[in-house]
Amino acid sequence: MGEITIIGAGMMGSALCWPLSDNHHAVRLVGTFLDEEIISACQSTGIHPKLQRRLPQGVIPFSYQQMPEALRGAEVIVSGVSSFGVDWFARTVGPFLKPAVPVIAVTKGLEDQPNGDLHILPVVTNDRLPEDLKDQISLNAIGGPCISHELAARRHTGVIFCGKELQELQKLQNIFATNYYHIRLSIDVTGVEVCAALKNAYALGVGLAMGMMDQQGPDGLANMYNPQAALFAQSCLEMRRLLHITDGGVENVSWLPGAGDLFVTVFGGRTMRLGRLLGQGLSFYEARQRLAGETLESVEIITRVARALPKLAARGITRLEDFPLLLHLDQIINHGKVVNIPWNDFFLEA
Amino acid sequence: MGEITIIGAGMMGSALCWPLSDNHHAVRLVGTFLDEEIISACQSTGIHPKLQRRLPQGVIPFSYQQMPEALRGAEVIVSGVSSFGVDWFARTVGPFLKPAVPVIAVTKGLEDQPNGDLHILPVVTNDRLPEDLKDQISLNAIGGPCISHELAARRHTGVIFCGKELQELQKLQNIFATNYYHIRLSIDVTGVEVCAALKNAYALGVGLAMGMMDQQGPDGLANMYNPQAALFAQSCLEMRRLLHITDGGVENVSWLPGAGDLFVTVFGGRTMRLGRLLGQGLSFYEARQRLAGETLESVEIITRVARALPKLAARGITRLEDFPLLLHLDQIINHGKVVNIPWNDFFLEA
Repeated sequence: MGEITIIGAGMMGSALCWPLSDNHHAVRLVGTFLDEEIISACQSTGIHPKLQRRLPQGVIPFSYQQMPEALRGAEVIVSGVSSFGVDWFARTVGPFLKPAVPVIAVTKGLEDQPNGDLHILPVVTNDRLPEDLKDQISLNAIGGPCISHELAARRHTGVIFCGKELQELQKLQNIFATNYYHIRLSIDVTGVEVCAALKNAYALGVGLAMGMMDQQGPDGLANMYNPQAALFAQSCLEMRRLLHITDGGVENVSWLPGAGDLFVTVFGGRTMRLGRLLGQGLSFYEARQRLAGETLESVEIITRVARALPKLAARGITRLEDFPLLLHLDQIINHGKVVNIPWNDFFLEA
Repeated sequence: MGEITIIGAGMMGSALCWPLSDNHHAVRLVGTFLDEEIISACQSTGIHPKLQRRLPQGVIPFSYQQMPEALRGAEVIVSGVSSFGVDWFARTVGPFLKPAVPVIAVTKGLEDQPNGDLHILPVVTNDRLPEDLKDQISLNAIGGPCISHELAARRHTGVIFCGKELQELQKLQNIFATNYYHIRLSIDVTGVEVCAALKNAYALGVGLAMGMMDQQGPDGLANMYNPQAALFAQSCLEMRRLLHITDGGVENVSWLPGAGDLFVTVFGGRTMRLGRLLGQGLSFYEARQRLAGETLESVEIITRVARALPKLAARGITRLEDFPLLLHLDQIINHGKVVNIPWNDFFLEA
């Protein structure tokens, strides 16, 4: 049982302490420069302040100033940074990486290139590594439906580990899998990672339906699942089209990485809260103020994909009319529009 | 604006009165022999007792004894019977059908044949029609996520009308579509209908996770989405495999008919209530007693598919290990087993 180093003490990176500890690994949980409060709370109380739970046995919290020490001799390095931290990770942690030590990331995102191409984060990370380490590091990632609080509560969770090498993935599976953390493997890194990023965008779209109900007022029914389900279905359809563009496998939509992860994200937290506020009729400016301090990866991914699509359409790779929901979300977030779901543009040419 | 006759005054058939009335059609809502109480309540109060809502303008309730009169001159006939009523419909309504009058059904189900083949209900209905009408009647069906209460509340709802002839479907779309009832068309009748049936089976599977949480007791977290999402993902995967067997298009899983309809059914009512009771540890016998009087189509579809699979496997058409969730549900329902999710058998070979 070796040493595992987790870089980033946010909720998802930290939640991996539980399966790792249950498998008797020594875990070094290293905060980034943004995580100083979390780490000092962990050090003084033993309780992770965001997960509100005592860190399990064998987990030692480290400040980012102790990072070199915390990385020494690690068998696996986990990247627990958000999509905003990918540059930082490549620049700061990059020089410590070694070809024999696999990296596995919980980070979700896509980066649009000047020509409209959408790059998944393992590709982005590799591009930013020190020159001598490029294409030398095993960069893997985790997709699939997992709310960090629930993983830390040891609830049954099904995820996908994806990477280029099946053997490397099997090694990682052996290290992380428990009787509640169910890991399956995929070498379709693009397919899994595109879904992992997009689910944040589309969960915001499904969230609009909840806000629309709040705004409309009671009509004698407690729930509002038909509109949510219609938005869920249109989300799956647009995800399928984006997989097609990016050469990811479209079958990813119809199990853990796509529909499964979208399901959890719809109910999971800040993305839904933002969607609900927008659906109630707040402007994005007002909604963002209400959620001050929250990392809004959904906004970032919507913006990036919406910026890429016209370029991809101009290159003949796709058509704008295939993405009415995503483009409406972009209008709301970046162009001051109010919610007005373009139902007539939905569900065309499945 | 012609006359539309709906046969069956259950919730889903009756909910179609709202878009039809909004399109200024005259609607004849005809109860089956099981719906006498509903019809007499509608006739005396104007309120549909199951939907708890006043029937909209232009809808006239008819007893089944008045059926010949209610069918006379109908432009379209809607079959609103449950899957248990397909024989009755073919035998009783069949003789009144005419080649020029399309039928559209809300009924969901699959019928297993002695050799294991699974037949969709439009095929079953056609087989049971009077000899001279076989293959002469346009038999269409509705799939996609729609809770009847919400349709009657005129909430945005996205559905698929499926049938063999696109022109016929366009005619039906013109009759039913409103600014809240969004209809898309598909000539993949098998794909849509297999999803429509299976979602009832798999919603029961997702429901188990809720009951498992109830049984386990509080652990500080209100929700339990990771296990639900994992079951949702496995459901989508098994639906995809069943579409493959039945020659339905697998892409149906990743929009309205599959993931969309499963989403709504998970939250929608009796199927979830049954799953939750089973997840709490009740035997199927006990759970069924608690739900006395409810039509349990989920149980029927699980039983039929589980009966077909070994025959299909013996014929080399599929493998039993591809359906661990469905076969576990069958064990619970038909063989007295308690819930014990076979996680290790899930998510293999996506």
